[in-house]
Amino acid sequence: MKPINVGLLGLGTVGGGTLTVLRRNASEITRRAGREIRVTMAAVRDLEKARKLAGNELEIVTDPFEVVNNPDIDIVVELIGGYTLSKELVLKAIANGKHVVTANKALLALHGNEIFKAAQDKGVMVAFEAAVAGGIPIIKALREGLTANRIEWIAGIINGTTNFILSEMRDKGLSFDTVLKQAQELGYAEADPTFDIEGIDAAHKLMIMSAIGFGIPMQFDKAYTEGISKLTREDIQYAEELGYRIKLLGITKRTPNGIELRVHPTLIPTKRLIANVEGVMNAVLVKGDAVGATMYYGRGAGAEPTASAVVADLVDVTRMHTADPEHRVPHLAFQPDALSDTPILPISEVRTSYYLRMRAFDKPGVLADLTRILADLEISIDAMIQKEPSEGEEQVNIIMLTHETVEKNIDQAIAKIEALSTIAGKVTRIRLEELEK
Amino acid sequence: MKPINVGLLGLGTVGGGTLTVLRRNASEITRRAGREIRVTMAAVRDLEKARKLAGNELEIVTDPFEVVNNPDIDIVVELIGGYTLSKELVLKAIANGKHVVTANKALLALHGNEIFKAAQDKGVMVAFEAAVAGGIPIIKALREGLTANRIEWIAGIINGTTNFILSEMRDKGLSFDTVLKQAQELGYAEADPTFDIEGIDAAHKLMIMSAIGFGIPMQFDKAYTEGISKLTREDIQYAEELGYRIKLLGITKRTPNGIELRVHPTLIPTKRLIANVEGVMNAVLVKGDAVGATMYYGRGAGAEPTASAVVADLVDVTRMHTADPEHRVPHLAFQPDALSDTPILPISEVRTSYYLRMRAFDKPGVLADLTRILADLEISIDAMIQKEPSEGEEQVNIIMLTHETVEKNIDQAIAKIEALSTIAGKVTRIRLEELEK
Repeated sequence: MKPINVGLLGLGTVGGGTLTVLRRNASEITRRAGREIRVTMAAVRDLEKARKLAGNELEIVTDPFEVVNNPDIDIVVELIGGYTLSKELVLKAIANGKHVVTANKALLALHGNEIFKAAQDKGVMVAFEAAVAGGIPIIKALREGLTANRIEWIAGIINGTTNFILSEMRDKGLSFDTVLKQAQELGYAEADPTFDIEGIDAAHKLMIMSAIGFGIPMQFDKAYTEGISKLTREDIQYAEELGYRIKLLGITKRTPNGIELRVHPTLIPTKRLIANVEGVMNAVLVKGDAVGATMYYGRGAGAEPTASAVVADLVDVTRMHTADPEHRVPHLAFQPDALSDTPILPISEVRTSYYLRMRAFDKPGVLADLTRILADLEISIDAMIQKEPSEGEEQVNIIMLTHETVEKNIDQAIAKIEALSTIAGKVTRIRLEELEK
Repeated sequence: MKPINVGLLGLGTVGGGTLTVLRRNASEITRRAGREIRVTMAAVRDLEKARKLAGNELEIVTDPFEVVNNPDIDIVVELIGGYTLSKELVLKAIANGKHVVTANKALLALHGNEIFKAAQDKGVMVAFEAAVAGGIPIIKALREGLTANRIEWIAGIINGTTNFILSEMRDKGLSFDTVLKQAQELGYAEADPTFDIEGIDAAHKLMIMSAIGFGIPMQFDKAYTEGISKLTREDIQYAEELGYRIKLLGITKRTPNGIELRVHPTLIPTKRLIANVEGVMNAVLVKGDAVGATMYYGRGAGAEPTASAVVADLVDVTRMHTADPEHRVPHLAFQPDALSDTPILPISEVRTSYYLRMRAFDKPGVLADLTRILADLEISIDAMIQKEPSEGEEQVNIIMLTHETVEKNIDQAIAKIEALSTIAGKVTRIRLEELEK
């Protein structure tokens, strides 16, 4: 059978990894796919560097439109990132009848609806396993492995940079700034780390998983996003003392009122398996009504782990590309005319538990004031600790864990607590999830 | 589009679960599959009981051949177990041009080659996600999610009964016999628990994963199988002291000389995520050359978790059944004319590390004798502890952890150690795997 011809847009970390994996495992991949998958063309910025990396077996060009317009290319792999040029290229490739594989979570979270619609109309596939959690086949698990289930919630450690930073802060008692610098030196964090540390990257991935899990269209503007840059060693330490670990989780949950879609630092019980996912590793917990909780763990980034997902998509497309488009797996797991219009809940309507820390002057009546405020808002307290003041300090740290309540009530409680004359400064609020086993 | 008609062979735990899940999640499953999937017929032993469970929406018969011969049935789901009648039924269904979904690991491990050949010749699909690790979509991950990789090894906790027993023995310091009885009372172990506790069930599942991972035919007679019935509280406790947990692992590994295929109690470092998979939960670690280690975790048994896998297969078959058979995912991941003839290694040729425990008379020269025997066989020692004799006892427990060596050398060493006059009784040998992260 004649080979499948692949054109790469971009030959950086993931593009290079894809080329390496396709070449090294060519014989096994051909045995699995039933025909050879070969990269015949790549568009790059730096011709000379690319020739050194790729050799003479493929045509290297600087204009990516040459790839998407080349009639010999069967599948276009988009690895240039961003969502302006990449969107134009992907839509052009689709218009030209080519299948597309992409690792671009931002592009899909922002423009997925338009892209999938175009692909649907043209009868081509857009595959994106590499867009979420790198080498972990989580898209396949959600879209095909758990189709029997009504998905109840998904909670994932889906950003390796922030998980590395949190692991190091806890392990070594270092501050956020110190570890961020180390992460940058190790190449785990970018020079401008905003997308990672503010949770935006995780929110892109969460949006994609939520769309597949619940059968809803992409609506990234409705995701709530809070990063880890304000987390202190102190809170990490107190959480540990209470039996919890702090992770940056992406959480999406089906509730009677709508779908929760939120990324934020989260206390989770230390005994949960996912609490022990350390360093740059990723893991996604999925709760289905039939299967219960399942977890998927592995490397969420890096040249070859991401290439593993890109190549798996190439094999999938190769296996499926002659099949009747109506019988292919739908892009968002659900048939396109059967997407749901369930609304995304604003963060004020989210229900969860909370870790609250405040600094109080060590005076009589403080606890009475605090507990009264919470009781009036019907927030019940699960645990409370008061730390002895350090020598020479006038203020004590009070930490409270609440039972589940709605976020707008906590907002009110915090406003009232901060207004107390016995409380100094701001209240620290970190959400808490039990993540039933 | 007209519904897909499913015929169930068996309406016990999994069959009942399948019916429940298909009915409860009918609307979501239809949204995903693109058409309705409905059970129209079931073959059972007890008509009355089945009618009570299933209601009047389906035809219930006692002769399973009525199901496999019914021209209105599109997919036959085999859930009766065993490998005599079930084999005949599955082959008959295939001969009649029906697709088959089965949860029967024994059938596939023993007769998979014949069944897949028949399905291939007839152009029908045989799907078996439920045969390994219940609701965890591990077959899909191995067969489709990790196609980019040369699989290096697979190691799994794939029998919930034995994992429950080991967790309880460790947690509560109970003996094997005591916990087995509890497991039987809880319904986690069968009245005749041999298949579970002697590792045979795990070996069936391992054979299937090995075939998919390495592209080899089924050859169950070559699997090495050792159960947990001889494990003592003492060894579990010593292992913990040394930083290891004992799990019944199914391990299959590619080596330069052949493929290892073995089920046995195994020491693994307590800090590994998989060491913390407790109770009836299952988990499978897969090491690929590109992706590194990935892990899949969830419920390995039970009505609805297993039904989750059965229904996922039904959706897969529904999505794919009009596709050109040549472009379907191959049953064993690799195209059928491209299976490998790599041999399975006998256990004597397996390379691993070992935990050895022996009872020695507390006399001078014992350790010198032991270490000399190991040194002569080029087995190096990683750790050794000698336990003080209990009051009134003459013998001490000596525990050694070895570095990696070949099993036949350990066999020789054990024979020589047991022949020493300073050693009392048999040497306990438990294999040890580091399972690199």
